[in-house]
Amino acid sequence: MDKFPIGIIGGAGGMGRWFAAFFEKEGHTVHVSGRDTGLRPAEMAAACPVVIVSVPIGVTEAVIREVGPHMKKETLLMDLTSLKAGPVRAMLETSGSEVIGLHPLFGPGVPSLEGQNIVLCPARAERWIPWVRDILGRNGANLIEATPERHDEIMAVVQALNHLNTLILGLSLRDTGISQEEMERFSTPLFRARLQAVENLFSHPQLYAEIIAGNPHISRIVDLHEKAFSTVKPLAAQQGAKALKELIRQERGGDRDHPHFP
Amino acid sequence: MDKFPIGIIGGAGGMGRWFAAFFEKEGHTVHVSGRDTGLRPAEMAAACPVVIVSVPIGVTEAVIREVGPHMKKETLLMDLTSLKAGPVRAMLETSGSEVIGLHPLFGPGVPSLEGQNIVLCPARAERWIPWVRDILGRNGANLIEATPERHDEIMAVVQALNHLNTLILGLSLRDTGISQEEMERFSTPLFRARLQAVENLFSHPQLYAEIIAGNPHISRIVDLHEKAFSTVKPLAAQQGAKALKELIRQERGGDRDHPHFP
Repeated sequence: MDKFPIGIIGGAGGMGRWFAAFFEKEGHTVHVSGRDTGLRPAEMAAACPVVIVSVPIGVTEAVIREVGPHMKKETLLMDLTSLKAGPVRAMLETSGSEVIGLHPLFGPGVPSLEGQNIVLCPARAERWIPWVRDILGRNGANLIEATPERHDEIMAVVQALNHLNTLILGLSLRDTGISQEEMERFSTPLFRARLQAVENLFSHPQLYAEIIAGNPHISRIVDLHEKAFSTVKPLAAQQGAKALKELIRQERGGDRDHPHFP
Repeated sequence: MDKFPIGIIGGAGGMGRWFAAFFEKEGHTVHVSGRDTGLRPAEMAAACPVVIVSVPIGVTEAVIREVGPHMKKETLLMDLTSLKAGPVRAMLETSGSEVIGLHPLFGPGVPSLEGQNIVLCPARAERWIPWVRDILGRNGANLIEATPERHDEIMAVVQALNHLNTLILGLSLRDTGISQEEMERFSTPLFRARLQAVENLFSHPQLYAEIIAGNPHISRIVDLHEKAFSTVKPLAAQQGAKALKELIRQERGGDRDHPHFP
């Protein structure tokens, strides 16, 4: 297959830019558009056999509805969003093209695809799936296939629960009365990693809010977190640690603390 | 100062072993004792001008009461526990020796002191403090001095709050119905780090239970976590993300998401 041009709508965002650089390195010409820059959706669809939507979750379906109707049968429409059920449904409904949902499970800070996980949701894909598997797999990505619905169920845990937990830590930290400078001076390696995660979340309100609140399973996740807190609360607040130790021990059925000392 | 022997009570545990190797590398003979092994407290105090207590938090004060009365005026008694107010008070009360509380802010997995933080609580220390500062500082540690009480206040955040938050994540993960194998296949780098932290916590029930429930400020920490959850809950569960985005945005007063796209 020759090096056809690829269009990335939202190519100025972190992941869009990352994949623009990736496809250019693979020899493709990449057309990038922002809200007011670059090719318009119809022009993008006319110029590029592969169009990738990489915009915030909240506007993904609207952008898909703009570009979808212009995608011809033999082309490929993809998105990079952190949720898959809504975007894949919108791509199937509005386009006549092949459709693959992608979710790269990494941020724009990674140097290459080597060892990174990418979820593929091949929704209407035949002609294009070998190319997608080849270009990502050849560069070292672990490709995992899932239905959009199963993807969103698993991301409710891997992303929504994880980020919800970090958000709660971040809000708690703010109210401790201990300055960030002092926290850093007294930090452990583990705590420094948590401060970094909190800082990253607070720096990207839209992204994290949409990953958390936009997940269709978020109510259940919030309930799980609340239940876990209710279990821990009475044991943590009770000076002495014995009951909390038993709770934690039950989780793994073992105790590797100080194996030679009480 | 010549290379006097150093005694570590609890030297078979992770941190005790780490510091035994450290002092041996510095040319000291190190006497290590466990519950039923090595020199008894009185023998340890007689043989070593420096004795370090490195046992689980819950038994630290009892062990200090055994060794303290045998420590002579010109010697040094220290402990490595993650809490400092109780142990330092016990060392002051039971011994006539110099007393320094130490809290190395790292785990036994680090290769050296280089860049690691260590809290010093010099409670009754004159003759010995230059030696402690020199041997730790010369090997690259950042030394921070604090009163035992202030140390415990800050550790309520850096350790107790941090580990409480991880424990809640761990309990929530157990109930998601998604297997650990599947979580790992669909993991992000951030999520893999969290799984590792959860695994580590569940593998050391006594250590983490004592750091959380043993901290004198834990009730306030539990309250802060609960308050943060109550703030997030109604916004997370409400599909749409706008309100949650506003909450997160207020934390930093900025939004660096997709700077060139809505």
